[in-house]
Amino acid sequence: MASKFLSERNLKFLLDEVFDVVSLTRYDCYKEYDQKTFGMLIKAAMELAEGLLYPIFQEMDKNPPEYVDDQIKVHLSIRKFLEESGKGGWIGIDLPFEWGGQQLPRMVTLVCRFIFCAANYSAAVYPDLTAGAARLILNFGKEDLKKSYLPGMLSGKWQGTMALTEPEAGSSLSDITTEAEPTDKGYYKMRGQKVFISAGDHDAVENVVHLMLAKIKGAPAGVKGISLFVVPKKRIDEGGQLVPNDVITSGIFHKLGYRGCPIAHLSIGDNDDCHGYLVGEPNQGLLHMFQMMNEARIGVGGGAAAIATAAYHAALEYSKKRLQGRKLSTKDPTLPQVPIIEHPDVKRMLLFQRSIAEGSLALLIQCGKYADLASVLAGEEKEKNELLLDLLTPIAKSYPSEMGLLSISAGLQCLGGSGYCDDYPLEQYYRDARIHPIHEGTTGIHGLDLLGRKVIMKNGKAYKLYLEEVQRAIREAGNWRELELHAQKLGQALELLQKVSAHLMGVAKKETLEIFLADATLYLELFGIISVAWQWLVQATVVVKALRNRHLEVESNFYNGKFFAFRYFFEYELPKIEGLARRLVNNDGLTVEMKPEFFSD
Amino acid sequence: MASKFLSERNLKFLLDEVFDVVSLTRYDCYKEYDQKTFGMLIKAAMELAEGLLYPIFQEMDKNPPEYVDDQIKVHLSIRKFLEESGKGGWIGIDLPFEWGGQQLPRMVTLVCRFIFCAANYSAAVYPDLTAGAARLILNFGKEDLKKSYLPGMLSGKWQGTMALTEPEAGSSLSDITTEAEPTDKGYYKMRGQKVFISAGDHDAVENVVHLMLAKIKGAPAGVKGISLFVVPKKRIDEGGQLVPNDVITSGIFHKLGYRGCPIAHLSIGDNDDCHGYLVGEPNQGLLHMFQMMNEARIGVGGGAAAIATAAYHAALEYSKKRLQGRKLSTKDPTLPQVPIIEHPDVKRMLLFQRSIAEGSLALLIQCGKYADLASVLAGEEKEKNELLLDLLTPIAKSYPSEMGLLSISAGLQCLGGSGYCDDYPLEQYYRDARIHPIHEGTTGIHGLDLLGRKVIMKNGKAYKLYLEEVQRAIREAGNWRELELHAQKLGQALELLQKVSAHLMGVAKKETLEIFLADATLYLELFGIISVAWQWLVQATVVVKALRNRHLEVESNFYNGKFFAFRYFFEYELPKIEGLARRLVNNDGLTVEMKPEFFSD
Repeated sequence: MASKFLSERNLKFLLDEVFDVVSLTRYDCYKEYDQKTFGMLIKAAMELAEGLLYPIFQEMDKNPPEYVDDQIKVHLSIRKFLEESGKGGWIGIDLPFEWGGQQLPRMVTLVCRFIFCAANYSAAVYPDLTAGAARLILNFGKEDLKKSYLPGMLSGKWQGTMALTEPEAGSSLSDITTEAEPTDKGYYKMRGQKVFISAGDHDAVENVVHLMLAKIKGAPAGVKGISLFVVPKKRIDEGGQLVPNDVITSGIFHKLGYRGCPIAHLSIGDNDDCHGYLVGEPNQGLLHMFQMMNEARIGVGGGAAAIATAAYHAALEYSKKRLQGRKLSTKDPTLPQVPIIEHPDVKRMLLFQRSIAEGSLALLIQCGKYADLASVLAGEEKEKNELLLDLLTPIAKSYPSEMGLLSISAGLQCLGGSGYCDDYPLEQYYRDARIHPIHEGTTGIHGLDLLGRKVIMKNGKAYKLYLEEVQRAIREAGNWRELELHAQKLGQALELLQKVSAHLMGVAKKETLEIFLADATLYLELFGIISVAWQWLVQATVVVKALRNRHLEVESNFYNGKFFAFRYFFEYELPKIEGLARRLVNNDGLTVEMKPEFFSD
Repeated sequence: MASKFLSERNLKFLLDEVFDVVSLTRYDCYKEYDQKTFGMLIKAAMELAEGLLYPIFQEMDKNPPEYVDDQIKVHLSIRKFLEESGKGGWIGIDLPFEWGGQQLPRMVTLVCRFIFCAANYSAAVYPDLTAGAARLILNFGKEDLKKSYLPGMLSGKWQGTMALTEPEAGSSLSDITTEAEPTDKGYYKMRGQKVFISAGDHDAVENVVHLMLAKIKGAPAGVKGISLFVVPKKRIDEGGQLVPNDVITSGIFHKLGYRGCPIAHLSIGDNDDCHGYLVGEPNQGLLHMFQMMNEARIGVGGGAAAIATAAYHAALEYSKKRLQGRKLSTKDPTLPQVPIIEHPDVKRMLLFQRSIAEGSLALLIQCGKYADLASVLAGEEKEKNELLLDLLTPIAKSYPSEMGLLSISAGLQCLGGSGYCDDYPLEQYYRDARIHPIHEGTTGIHGLDLLGRKVIMKNGKAYKLYLEEVQRAIREAGNWRELELHAQKLGQALELLQKVSAHLMGVAKKETLEIFLADATLYLELFGIISVAWQWLVQATVVVKALRNRHLEVESNFYNGKFFAFRYFFEYELPKIEGLARRLVNNDGLTVEMKPEFFSD
């Protein structure tokens, strides 16, 4: 285990110096808070992460959940963690005060969750899922549903889940077949199968509350017939007692990583006795669920950035200690070996990791800021922030997920053979993080979402707002001599994005939808690189100001490091858009024309 | 388990149609063979792979070697496989007839090993290591060493290993401290520690023969003082009996993947009773070992390409069967779902995998051809082929290793959540393959080897020969209308490589070695992409001829698929050189100037 899984200095830098979180306290909603209370909260999150989560990080992987007698047993500390999460208010961290929540801005809650995920991703998922499910009930549920379910969930005694996927309906949610049959008793009778349900059942809680998608009997085909239900493992009977609700756990999946959290297969209503309670309007389920899914997508990006961060710090610690080889220019074998962090290629790998991890986190907090501003502002300004958040969500989910894998792989590589062995945590990070490009929508799905929906919605309004945001950052950076060249480079990158986008809009008019969207995943990658470059330029602008103010040496190490990571991103990552753009302007339909039978043999 | 782990059609295509393996039979050395006997051999390898290796692929992973009472227990089938490997002549596959070998060309032996690796990488490593060790003894050992050790090894009763790495000497072999003390009895007394020794000890053989690097007492510091020894686990006493040789297994490493093969920690001479036998000249050990290491590097590239191939076929099979979603242009939810192989983004991922796996294999067989020609030719022609092999070895090792990881990850992605679960083999391929960028020299080491040694050796002679080889392929392809544009593209890529190389040679003259070599890993990547593009153009030239000859439909499916994979590589992979080149011509010394303390916090 490395002694450290993230940089608190970096969290402070991003929240205070870059995104000015305290500026939100001028709004009524957050007026109870100030910089000090935000700081205390981060400190409390660190204490919980360091004291309870990080020590069991490897243990939970080595002793994954077991499925015994229709029951899933999880690590003993999960109960304690969920109780602490309830007591400490972590589950209701972003819920309103009136429901016992802490009503904190997203920027802060995102950072707190990031801390838990960096310490122990599998553990952190349990309360996060409950929080997301609770918010859905709060926003769309009837009063009695709220009263019946929220207290148990917010106290950490009950688990919440998202129950969407079915054996024949993963990416294609329109094909779910779980059925809800209306009764005259205020509930629906539920029947179906759900798979891949994270924390879908376990013995660290008294009850599990599924926020489940199903189709009301006779509903229209496709997504227009999907409704949202609360389906508890144990329902509350007339006497207020918890009784079984015919939700059977029929198995768990054995996974590459992320092993501390059970992924369940659920059988619903096998004995015709499963009650479900409608949340929101009939046939509006997907729309409601999208609130949770969009938050969950930012959450997945945060989890990915968190694991990449922890992996980076583990690789950094090893690279400082491990002696191997000598400087290339002084290969005298009688000299002592040097720490590998002195080798340029190791520094390159570390800078790569830092630029991915810290660039991703900045982008995520930027999304948090848009969410916060959307919640406190009104009218045009509210819409603007909502649109920017909508546009960036597929990127904030996918970029950290995809690049996090490469970053962690580079971390493992720093350790050589040791990275491949379980004496060090890198191999686990490598396994854990592989889930991120898959869950909450695969990268391919997010490519389609970005190019096929977000960029063109409202006549490209979100896209234009995005261009303005980046252009503003370019102008501000351009005022600093140290950043002039980089500001120009991002300007050129933005022009390339516009050229590619314009080309694709032309394709959309002339060609089939298949050809227009064939390389949407590459477009997502291109957009992601430019977005993270933007976030690095924003950070660098703060850094240059700080360095001019002559900090203490230890502080200038931090800022100098930031500046090198920024330069690294512009020198090594940003140029990747050249190759992507070259492909994206060629709509030859190669992958459309390739026939399945050509893969034969 | 997928029903298929490679395409025999592709092996035939490469060996017969592209590389014309049968042309080697005109040389004395291979005159015993013809196309039919080569074919029978491939068939026999497939039978062994399908009958014995593939069925235990997952089982060996789930039941990894155990270390009990100083002994390593491995899967029961390993003994049988090693015996079969001995009986079938697979261990001595490329050794001369006089030693009971099969004296087959490298192109064929490489393909046979590829077959075993694709079926079960962990298992395939055992006999491969023995073969490499045996060749070293054969080439550099004295007659009595050969007589004492080769029969046991070639029969599969004894295991061979490469024992190089020590706790403080991995990439930096010059720092090994294992010591050999001369005696007047014809042997050396050995003392030291070796770690990460593949198949370093196990219970499926009667003896283990380590080809070990050590320093003779008083030898010069650094690599100039390294000698090569045979150090058996059990030595042969005067009566011809096997007796313990004070080589103690002190532990095994628990690994991310490649779990079926034990990686041992060995303590040598703890009781002052370990005999070692010098192989070759004193202090020439590294030079001798490099013969084995260069072969092993091609072998690692082959293993990486093999796992990527097996993963591709598993992903392909799933994609043909799994129904999910509909064509984007006909999203009517009442229509049946389509196999995911009909989605362009899935086809993109499959083409990516095919282009990496089959492009890598072609490059490896190209290396095999250079080795074969070097062994049968003399003078200038011999040197030419040797130089080309030397130059390409770091690329043939690293490109399949690095890109194989991404290819397998794309395969896993095709399966979505199922790819993350152990019901399917993708997650194991993903773990198994992660060793390849590490063992036999990390990717960083190979970057230094390519730019700092191979490209500049003999005044760039190998590099110039390489350019001529690629230019010849460009000229030949350019004769076919269907390939004109692609030939031009590769020509431009080659110009870019020359521009980058020339720039770097200028840097070498003006700047420090650190700055010259700072981005050697990127240079390796650039060189790798161009080399695989070259191999795709060579394949495409054969394909175009075949398609013009109007094959049967099933055959044209194969050739059409090849042609799409070729186009994919040129459209999606080759453009990546743009971003790499942009960085490589900027020698700002970013990673050299980055100070270790800037990583603080």
